Amino acid sequence: MSTLESPAPKKAYHHGDLRAALIDAGLTLLETRAGQGNGDDLSLREVARAVGVSATAVYRHFPDKGALMAALAAEGLARLAVVQHAASDAAGGGVAGFGATGAAYVRFALANPALFRLIFANPASFHLHPDGQEDDAMAFLRANAALLAKGKGGDAQVIALQAWAIAHGLAMLMLDGQVPVDDALIDRVIDTDAISG
Amino acid sequence: MSTLESPAPKKAYHHGDLRAALIDAGLTLLETRAGQGNGDDLSLREVARAVGVSATAVYRHFPDKGALMAALAAEGLARLAVVQHAASDAAGGGVAGFGATGAAYVRFALANPALFRLIFANPASFHLHPDGQEDDAMAFLRANAALLAKGKGGDAQVIALQAWAIAHGLAMLMLDGQVPVDDALIDRVIDTDAISG
Repeated sequence: MSTLESPAPKKAYHHGDLRAALIDAGLTLLETRAGQGNGDDLSLREVARAVGVSATAVYRHFPDKGALMAALAAEGLARLAVVQHAASDAAGGGVAGFGATGAAYVRFALANPALFRLIFANPASFHLHPDGQEDDAMAFLRANAALLAKGKGGDAQVIALQAWAIAHGLAMLMLDGQVPVDDALIDRVIDTDAISG
Repeated sequence: MSTLESPAPKKAYHHGDLRAALIDAGLTLLETRAGQGNGDDLSLREVARAVGVSATAVYRHFPDKGALMAALAAEGLARLAVVQHAASDAAGGGVAGFGATGAAYVRFALANPALFRLIFANPASFHLHPDGQEDDAMAFLRANAALLAKGKGGDAQVIALQAWAIAHGLAMLMLDGQVPVDDALIDRVIDTDAISG
């Protein structure tokens, strides 16, 4: 888009650039503020201030706070997928890389607690529907589960859910202070042998 | 205790009875109100009203909202332990009963969503500390994990965490609408074969 934001009280952004800048500012505010939580206390006005534009300029991209939160969740999910692909590649990919994707999932949650909570407070962001539209993280989970099912037998859907549940559960228990954060423990708990299908 | 609450504006309770009545009312309000969440929107005043006593009478038992929430979380955890013991017994106990305790954990979460979230929003309520004080749910998890470690090998602490993480993760994913609630799927995903130690 080449439309300039107008009137732009403090800065001028190209349309697409402003959207990206608002998402970046939202992600930063989400993780750096004291409140923690899942962004409940974040306001569109505050994001506008951080980027240096008027609230009106923000409304053109995000009509309400829910729209901004959904965009932050989608961006978070895309970053999670990138991290999981990288972890899998580093471990040699395939079945060997599957355990690494789970450990990367837990570490992503610990490094981005508010974003991780926000992703899962957004029911639209992540679904295991057999025939629905899938995001990259889910498609990758499903492909890995299918590989493991082929190698050791079992039902690929059950394997996908077991792998997801164990990583998600460990992440939540560590985030909620129920289990001490121990980096070495993550690799021991997230183990693809621990999946039967 | 035989001290009567005094002045008791609407009803008179024995001291211990009022505490129990306040916890019961708190648990009911937690699950039945529209707000959902983890009790953030529950007030001591509202619990007092539900039981028919003054806010002052409530303050004698719970000096602030956090104290009531901690008592609700502790009661929830005790109920979760009862449900897990019953599920294990029904499945024949021991290793055979271990998978049943995990499935019971997920079903408890689905039946008591706000209470389940409250338990895990209370860092004091549930810990896997090797030498700390343990509640009944945690002691039972540890005993089951030790049994499984004895039978199939592996590290009992890792087994305990895998079992807890998979049940906790599936519960959270279903509560958050990420995975459709499907009762038969719970038993397929929560499978003690899916634990390697």
